[in-house]
Amino acid sequence: MTDELRKDHPRKAVVLVSGGLDSATVLAMARQAGFDCYALTFDYGQRHRQELDAARRQCELQQVKAHLVVPLDLRQIGGSALTDELDVPKDRNETELSAGIPITYVPARNTIFLSIALGWAEVLGAFDLFIGVNAVDYSGYPDCRPEFITQFEQLANLATRAGVEKTGNFRIHTPLIALKKFEIIRQGQALGVDYSRTLSCYDPQADGTPCGHCDSCQLRWKGFSEAGVTDPSLQ
Amino acid sequence: MTDELRKDHPRKAVVLVSGGLDSATVLAMARQAGFDCYALTFDYGQRHRQELDAARRQCELQQVKAHLVVPLDLRQIGGSALTDELDVPKDRNETELSAGIPITYVPARNTIFLSIALGWAEVLGAFDLFIGVNAVDYSGYPDCRPEFITQFEQLANLATRAGVEKTGNFRIHTPLIALKKFEIIRQGQALGVDYSRTLSCYDPQADGTPCGHCDSCQLRWKGFSEAGVTDPSLQ
Repeated sequence: MTDELRKDHPRKAVVLVSGGLDSATVLAMARQAGFDCYALTFDYGQRHRQELDAARRQCELQQVKAHLVVPLDLRQIGGSALTDELDVPKDRNETELSAGIPITYVPARNTIFLSIALGWAEVLGAFDLFIGVNAVDYSGYPDCRPEFITQFEQLANLATRAGVEKTGNFRIHTPLIALKKFEIIRQGQALGVDYSRTLSCYDPQADGTPCGHCDSCQLRWKGFSEAGVTDPSLQ
Repeated sequence: MTDELRKDHPRKAVVLVSGGLDSATVLAMARQAGFDCYALTFDYGQRHRQELDAARRQCELQQVKAHLVVPLDLRQIGGSALTDELDVPKDRNETELSAGIPITYVPARNTIFLSIALGWAEVLGAFDLFIGVNAVDYSGYPDCRPEFITQFEQLANLATRAGVEKTGNFRIHTPLIALKKFEIIRQGQALGVDYSRTLSCYDPQADGTPCGHCDSCQLRWKGFSEAGVTDPSLQ
């Protein structure tokens, strides 16, 4: 993607930043590619509200141009263990992890988040959106699949002023989509991402300590293990 | 659309209800088609906050199964005369009205609204979404065009649990899309819609009196005039 950019005229990008490992890495990749980064985080009533603090810290560390935290209470809609009074599954084995869409799926979350990112991008004059979806070491969410991203990109170019006036083409960047978790971690380390300041757990303790047993903790643990490094957030 | 429905097992529909003339008519059409209606309204920081009262009244009158008002402050994003400190254009002539996308366009609004409607639909087990977009007597918004709607429908069927598990097909219903304003009004009247309790103005006075000069007031005035009836909201 770097070849598209002229370093003397950096383009703006809107980057979805959750506070987790993946989006911290995506932000570093977008910066590395020469974009001026505008970070977008949602305060959507998630259980793990320490995510928001982690997102703020990550945006400070990576010196984004602006960081917008949008309140959007998805608890009004419910339907997910992350936003409703449902238990977060723990200690699931490989078979369970690959058996369909888990209860931690938040209905239409990435569609909603990308839509709002698109609105902000229009106002900023940005045509590049970055999202840390992953279709390899992931939880089986429908809105992390490459075909979903392709479809959203097409939608973005119809939904907007720029789509009508042909002033630019929106592009949804998903630099992690084909990477395994350990590869994400290695790339992030090479870019100097401080993973001690990221939170991936779906159900952390009040002080932010990860539970170590939810799907996200398990995927993170496996990733650091395969990368051959210790997770600095656990030190 | 009625032939798809079995009256003894009404299906659920999520209907976007703004408080204006168009969405009040769409709601009546969805009910007429036999759907159990779940109304969704956004408190998005619009200037014309009397819209929200009008939406609530309309939902009561039309006895929806539930009415969800979601706060989502699009003023954080700005970029529109409806959500920002920009003047609402007044008394534009036919040439000006047809000259591109006006400043009242709210970036990505229908994408955002439909995305959240999609999330709620997933939780409700609904596959039918209704939105009052219109591609004839409208303001030239990109996200009112038929190609946008078709694209969003395709996205909905990729973005969701149901899209993966093939438990149903989402459909975006746009019963007004090819109607002229006076036709919308006539159909609504035939269905008993109380238009005295709708607000279309982009810039009403504090007591809800429409300005009479914005694009939306002009389109409404023309519609009632061509329908040969007096706008009951002005009586």
